[in-house]
Amino acid sequence: MEEIGPVTRKRRATSHEIGVTLKLVNGRSTVVESAIGHGDSRTFVTKQNVTGLASTASKEKKKRRNVPSDQLSCHRLQESLLSSSSGYSNYRGVLNWCVVMLVLSNARLFLENLLKYGILVDPIQVVALFVKDPYNMPAVCLVIVSNVFVLVAFYTERRLSVGCFSEHFGLLVHSINLSVILCFPVAVVLMVKSVTPVGGAVALGVYTILFLKLYSYKDVNKWCREMCYAKARSLSRSISCKSASATFNGKNNNLYYFVFAPTLCYELNFPRSPKIRKSFLLRRLCEMLFFTQLLVGLTQQWMVPIIQSSMKPLEDMDLSRMVEHLLRLAVPNHLLWLIFFYTFFHSAMNFVAELLQFGDREFYRDWWNSETVPYFWQNWNIPVHKWCLRHFYKPMLKRGVSKWAGQSAVFLASAFFHEYLVSVPLKMLRPWAFLGMMAQLPLAWFVACFLRGNYGNAAVWISLIIGQPFAVLMYVHDYYVLQHREESAGVGPD
Amino acid sequence: MEEIGPVTRKRRATSHEIGVTLKLVNGRSTVVESAIGHGDSRTFVTKQNVTGLASTASKEKKKRRNVPSDQLSCHRLQESLLSSSSGYSNYRGVLNWCVVMLVLSNARLFLENLLKYGILVDPIQVVALFVKDPYNMPAVCLVIVSNVFVLVAFYTERRLSVGCFSEHFGLLVHSINLSVILCFPVAVVLMVKSVTPVGGAVALGVYTILFLKLYSYKDVNKWCREMCYAKARSLSRSISCKSASATFNGKNNNLYYFVFAPTLCYELNFPRSPKIRKSFLLRRLCEMLFFTQLLVGLTQQWMVPIIQSSMKPLEDMDLSRMVEHLLRLAVPNHLLWLIFFYTFFHSAMNFVAELLQFGDREFYRDWWNSETVPYFWQNWNIPVHKWCLRHFYKPMLKRGVSKWAGQSAVFLASAFFHEYLVSVPLKMLRPWAFLGMMAQLPLAWFVACFLRGNYGNAAVWISLIIGQPFAVLMYVHDYYVLQHREESAGVGPD
Repeated sequence: MEEIGPVTRKRRATSHEIGVTLKLVNGRSTVVESAIGHGDSRTFVTKQNVTGLASTASKEKKKRRNVPSDQLSCHRLQESLLSSSSGYSNYRGVLNWCVVMLVLSNARLFLENLLKYGILVDPIQVVALFVKDPYNMPAVCLVIVSNVFVLVAFYTERRLSVGCFSEHFGLLVHSINLSVILCFPVAVVLMVKSVTPVGGAVALGVYTILFLKLYSYKDVNKWCREMCYAKARSLSRSISCKSASATFNGKNNNLYYFVFAPTLCYELNFPRSPKIRKSFLLRRLCEMLFFTQLLVGLTQQWMVPIIQSSMKPLEDMDLSRMVEHLLRLAVPNHLLWLIFFYTFFHSAMNFVAELLQFGDREFYRDWWNSETVPYFWQNWNIPVHKWCLRHFYKPMLKRGVSKWAGQSAVFLASAFFHEYLVSVPLKMLRPWAFLGMMAQLPLAWFVACFLRGNYGNAAVWISLIIGQPFAVLMYVHDYYVLQHREESAGVGPD
Repeated sequence: MEEIGPVTRKRRATSHEIGVTLKLVNGRSTVVESAIGHGDSRTFVTKQNVTGLASTASKEKKKRRNVPSDQLSCHRLQESLLSSSSGYSNYRGVLNWCVVMLVLSNARLFLENLLKYGILVDPIQVVALFVKDPYNMPAVCLVIVSNVFVLVAFYTERRLSVGCFSEHFGLLVHSINLSVILCFPVAVVLMVKSVTPVGGAVALGVYTILFLKLYSYKDVNKWCREMCYAKARSLSRSISCKSASATFNGKNNNLYYFVFAPTLCYELNFPRSPKIRKSFLLRRLCEMLFFTQLLVGLTQQWMVPIIQSSMKPLEDMDLSRMVEHLLRLAVPNHLLWLIFFYTFFHSAMNFVAELLQFGDREFYRDWWNSETVPYFWQNWNIPVHKWCLRHFYKPMLKRGVSKWAGQSAVFLASAFFHEYLVSVPLKMLRPWAFLGMMAQLPLAWFVACFLRGNYGNAAVWISLIIGQPFAVLMYVHDYYVLQHREESAGVGPD
């Protein structure tokens, strides 16, 4: 790929023609001739042209000034722009070309889809994804029950801060609480038949976030106490011991603020924005509503037909058709992911942050420019990245674990949670999400070793665009086969 | 579209942590922490943040230096990158994303096409496009006959230079010669049944180029004589009269060099490149061979099936399906045009120029950056643009025609030749190419009035991508209907 650079061509306009005016067109100066002469009087001299052409051209020009036959010669010694020797590098228009081609290709696909399937968007169908029976909503109940764990964590910390619980006992209570947070929803989702995959995924997501938040809450309060004891010991002052309990914010408010705040890392005093900007809040809300509708619409109209039509090639194990369906799925899947990213990480998180006057809005960094795989994982989801760094990676380093082992452990934990959030709601244990995450390690190694700059960036994009639909297809295939087998097993005995 | 600009975020790393190293990743400095502390010690300060956050942050930092509880706070007051208030503008990765998406979408289309139609590429079929009968090649004969007109022009000029022909008689002979050049091949193509559309188009192309070249030859020689007479008169010297005839290069070589040179503007002494670079010649030759094969292959595999399948919607006048087929045709048609442009204007012309040591290689300028319609037409085909400027537009201005009228006349002439090169070989007079060219005038006005910068550039691209296949579909539809009617008429009497 060519770098978009400044125009590297110098232009010399011979000024002996009558009425030559210079005008800036397309970022380069163009000679607008209102002259009477016939010849094209412009002399192009390329910067890189070190072969003495420039001096030849200027000599030629001088000769021509004496002879009035300027109109007779209209050719100069020069290279084509696309020749490497011309030194030309302004391909700014190519970016616009890419955008236009993408828009037109997708407009075509959209029209083709509409003509083939008609309008498939159906908002009522979406509700059915979340609840099977409006009087029996286990996922909602699960989310409400989660408050119990928040309160357990809060009261444990209160006991610890006043010294009623020993550190060891506190750790035990926290560990049990955190383990139950991870296991309880799994049991409910797997045992209660009326939990839909989507409802289950949402409930598990809430519990996972809660797990990470309460883990951070436990850690930070422990650090606070440790620090105060250390200070007390070094200064040998008994007053400090009291300040240890003072660091713990005894109000329930603070923990609930943290539970709803768009961050996973607990802090005693979060930075706060000065006021709630109503127009900002409204814009984020509109974005959320619009993009959620768009997500649902695109899924129904674009994803579902492709997935349905790709079941046959997957069953037949027809390789070339499988690849074709994978590529066909890749584009809508990727667009949905991008819309999801914007809706969740920009609109929704900023909305909640604005509402809570939460000051730190760094929910993502510039992952779109990432030239290495780790850069992407470190920058696309900052709350999780921050949590991993603060509560997992750095404590491990402190305990003497090597950097490489630490990074692998982070990936392993991440792979576990990806699997947890997909396998349990689908009620089927398959290693695809786990393998997808673990495949990032060799991919990262490959990109770091062999690809640089824009090529590295392109590799990261390709892994995103291709990797996800691959995992999606795998799960859908297995889910479909499972359902199919159950149906045929159900039909069998009749 | 966002401008790709420099990274506008400044990063301040607090240096009190142990072992903080700075490393340049992705063009921005990243703090690689090998430190023991828990807190994320990086402080981001956005440049645009004029609200005093920067000073607050540095104060906060100072305060934190005294307190070792740095690890406890890991949030800063900051905006999300995609918020307009963050002032962030580095979307370099988006260009790579566009390229990756385009490649993947087209890979998918390619695979779909292969699975649907199998391999349709057939090199033998191509030969049949040029000749119906290998012993009867009227197009080749036409090209050989064109030498007659070159020789007529040459001998007329020789007579004129020595004064045997008067200026008026010379003009008459030239006019007749040039008229015959335009009319003779039309008569042959329309009357000889064995001329194929492709063969006819090539022959007509050769004759059109010859017409433009001999017109330029006639003009330049006339200007030479005029100038010498003028000089003779002003200097009152009889020697100059002889120099008038000396300006005419009496050798046949010069005219034939001009006939084969990749330019349409005659000159007494063309700038010559110092030597033939064999590697350059070889590369251009390989490009020509490869891209010609690619053009033929893509046409057979991609264009023909789409055109065939779009006949039914065109007959039924089914609007939404017509638009879908138009968009489906637009992508391959545009790619073919781009390949044709590169093959003809870069590879072939540079090949011929290198072989003839022709120095002026400016066959095109940076039309891909054009932000206005005239800029595109002035820069994509420099030989024709140069000819129009030198032999058509400027002489008109000299005769007192207004600029606007002159430009319209150039477009009209261009539209005429586009029509000439399409209608005659297809043996069917339809106004589509003519209208397509004339539609550029209102388009140019619209773009100039309402669109600027990147939007103007995008509009030029869209007109290229959509306009061409529109005309192609029109001709193909009419050609198909004509053939169909003839066939049914032929079947009738049996």
